[in-house]
Amino acid sequence: MKLIGLYRSPYVRRVAVSLNLLGFEYENEAITPFENPEAVSPHNPLVRIPTLVLDDGEVLVESYAILDTLDDMSPAEKRLLPPSGDARKHALKLAAIATGTMDKTVWAVYEGRFHPKEKYHKPWVEHNEAQAEGGLAYLNDAVLKADVAEEGWLADTDRIGQADVSATIAYSFALMARPKLGVAEKFPALKAFAERMEATNAFSSVAP
Amino acid sequence: MKLIGLYRSPYVRRVAVSLNLLGFEYENEAITPFENPEAVSPHNPLVRIPTLVLDDGEVLVESYAILDTLDDMSPAEKRLLPPSGDARKHALKLAAIATGTMDKTVWAVYEGRFHPKEKYHKPWVEHNEAQAEGGLAYLNDAVLKADVAEEGWLADTDRIGQADVSATIAYSFALMARPKLGVAEKFPALKAFAERMEATNAFSSVAP
Repeated sequence: MKLIGLYRSPYVRRVAVSLNLLGFEYENEAITPFENPEAVSPHNPLVRIPTLVLDDGEVLVESYAILDTLDDMSPAEKRLLPPSGDARKHALKLAAIATGTMDKTVWAVYEGRFHPKEKYHKPWVEHNEAQAEGGLAYLNDAVLKADVAEEGWLADTDRIGQADVSATIAYSFALMARPKLGVAEKFPALKAFAERMEATNAFSSVAP
Repeated sequence: MKLIGLYRSPYVRRVAVSLNLLGFEYENEAITPFENPEAVSPHNPLVRIPTLVLDDGEVLVESYAILDTLDDMSPAEKRLLPPSGDARKHALKLAAIATGTMDKTVWAVYEGRFHPKEKYHKPWVEHNEAQAEGGLAYLNDAVLKADVAEEGWLADTDRIGQADVSATIAYSFALMARPKLGVAEKFPALKAFAERMEATNAFSSVAP
């Protein structure tokens, strides 16, 4: 498989960590579609990353759809989301809030990246940052409720799952991309949990 | 159930149409989180729509996670995505490209909505519009390949599914929100398909 996109993208990184945990072999093509659209557009009409080219040439796009298909391609005992019912709903909700947090952090980042300085609109950045902080506060509470800062898994599963992957990356991305928000100080339980996750090979081998 | 959000939002609308097709009863609270954040924030830490409050008080957020849970709550013969394998991968990919198209259209819309006139950055709008058009071109090709402009379903299924729902709404939203793009003229097969879908009660009862 070939995973197109930089690990700086939280969406690329949640696919990369998931590939590691599921045990898929892949190579990474570390490009951005802004600088190299021609490397992405033949595979993905949206010209977005992550784009995952499977060994048979089939291409998967959009991280939630990629992760659904990768789980479906994996044996039940390795999948990162429970198959159904309340367990799936709970794990998926945590992963969805983490992904929404990534979205809002990205929107805050993009304002500065894709606007000339004189068109930078601070109220819009702050609006998105506030939403991202709302997501991180929810995840911090989830770590406290499940008591997993030091051991165990966020969604009450018996092994690491997509809630753990996405919550960690939502935090690590906000820490890197919005340093002035002070998320480490504001969300200490999430910080401890994310640091435990980031120390494992599945995460540290795909550091941004 | 209570579905919070305006049908002008393509994400709210794909949940509404899906609720209709799955046969769930719901009421709609037609608000935006920008004007009424206090109506959303108690339910959703991201303060985003759609937010779906279930009858037992549980809350679902982010449309892909909401739709996954609604399918899981439904009998197999009503679900909007195939359960597994190539059929699921194919339908989910079409739905994901449709949703990515919604994302890029929303980004183009938001530039004008959340920036004062002097900070409107046209190149960023055009960048997002070009990506949205890439998605619509893919969906137009998919309609042609599956030969479903006049009858049948986009993902080679024997009944309407999430690929049909999301592709239709991606088109209808772009038509409404970016009228200058001329998407009806550029993507005639998708136009015919979407008009056929929009004429059904599941869609027309939740018109924007």
